[in-house]
Amino acid sequence: MNICRNSISVTPKPYHKMEAYTFQPIGIIHSCFKEKFAIPRQPGLVKEATATLELLAPFNNVETLDGIDDFSHLWISFVFHEAIKNKAETNFKAKVRPPRLGGNQRVGVFASRSMFRPNPIGLSVVELCRVDRNAATPTLHLAGVDLLDGTPVLDIKPYLGYVDAIPDARSGFAPMAPQKKLDVNWTETAKQACQNLKDIYPELEQLIIHLIELDPRPAYQNKNTSKTEYGMALYEFNIRWAVDDVRAKVLSILPG
Amino acid sequence: MNICRNSISVTPKPYHKMEAYTFQPIGIIHSCFKEKFAIPRQPGLVKEATATLELLAPFNNVETLDGIDDFSHLWISFVFHEAIKNKAETNFKAKVRPPRLGGNQRVGVFASRSMFRPNPIGLSVVELCRVDRNAATPTLHLAGVDLLDGTPVLDIKPYLGYVDAIPDARSGFAPMAPQKKLDVNWTETAKQACQNLKDIYPELEQLIIHLIELDPRPAYQNKNTSKTEYGMALYEFNIRWAVDDVRAKVLSILPG
Repeated sequence: MNICRNSISVTPKPYHKMEAYTFQPIGIIHSCFKEKFAIPRQPGLVKEATATLELLAPFNNVETLDGIDDFSHLWISFVFHEAIKNKAETNFKAKVRPPRLGGNQRVGVFASRSMFRPNPIGLSVVELCRVDRNAATPTLHLAGVDLLDGTPVLDIKPYLGYVDAIPDARSGFAPMAPQKKLDVNWTETAKQACQNLKDIYPELEQLIIHLIELDPRPAYQNKNTSKTEYGMALYEFNIRWAVDDVRAKVLSILPG
Repeated sequence: MNICRNSISVTPKPYHKMEAYTFQPIGIIHSCFKEKFAIPRQPGLVKEATATLELLAPFNNVETLDGIDDFSHLWISFVFHEAIKNKAETNFKAKVRPPRLGGNQRVGVFASRSMFRPNPIGLSVVELCRVDRNAATPTLHLAGVDLLDGTPVLDIKPYLGYVDAIPDARSGFAPMAPQKKLDVNWTETAKQACQNLKDIYPELEQLIIHLIELDPRPAYQNKNTSKTEYGMALYEFNIRWAVDDVRAKVLSILPG
């Protein structure tokens, strides 16, 4: 039986205006990503991308997290705060250009996960690593994030596999994970800098490789560009790399 | 390599207060569920539960939906508007009693999907049946909903299987779908009433069966209660049924 084909039309009552709702952030993200450039375009793509979520008063009662450790993944609802910075609230475009379509094809904003949307609310499923209940304020340690440092968090919900996991869902222009696009090599200097930081950032090398492999450049720059050198702000570092065709080389890891 | 074990602590900068954010609903839900009682506790449990999502001005530009038909499922972010009606915004409880735990065990609000949460934002994955672009305002037809009629919608996002489907996620107190709890039988009158409505509501019988099977009674009422008759407001009807142990009988389908 195809429910969809037989779907019942529910006669709409006339609603023309609804009240606005105001939400106070319940937490803030402290992330390895200090700027938008090079953040993976979805969560889960780079496991080594970590963040902490610090609860904010008056929501920082440690009891709000009772039982959360029994869930391996969480939904984080957040505000795309950088997308609305210095922009009028009315800056709403009906169509956007998803990077997955090469940046030159447009789809409706509600058919995309673009940060430029009528209500700039983001939604990411992330891995819950551990809960620090003894920190100054209760703190969740997360992995596989695509969240900018300073992101305001509106809500945390447990991931429920039996509801949320729909492996046979048809997913339009993004049917599968983006493929690795670049081979990543290192200069001796950069490699050594990474080694020197191993005690503090044991995953730094893998993090850098996995981020650059995805080729964070805007889609329209991927080809025929004169620019060949790039930088990203990761933790307190400025990571520099060069691209030549499908080869990338990490040049340096400098203080940010 | 266990990323979680090696997760890097990101030193938090001191943030003590964040600005609040105000969102204007982009749409409204017209649903078969006219009251909270008997709404399935998660989406996807009852496929025959349908709704329409009507875009509201100024977001009702049909171009916002371009390409959305290529996705079988959507995320709906919405406001639990009934949960905040006539309640002070400060009505925030750190712990809640999920029905799945029998209603007498408490967990942290962020380890639950309870509607009573600091920011009353709901999140449901629903099936997209079709898009009506010729309606007075662009309208999405949805199935498998757990949404109350009149629900304000904050955002619509496509479901991305490669990101959102994590079949091996560990899901705490709700590792699998709730089991069918009641056997549903019918009085002749009720059965006939359903038959008479078949042209307008072809799925009504299955909808009623699947809703009652889940036993919508509050967990604390499931046993040892003197109350045996129940009613729910579905479409424009008042559906009455009786419960005796694990047997339910649909009594009547009355005008609402």
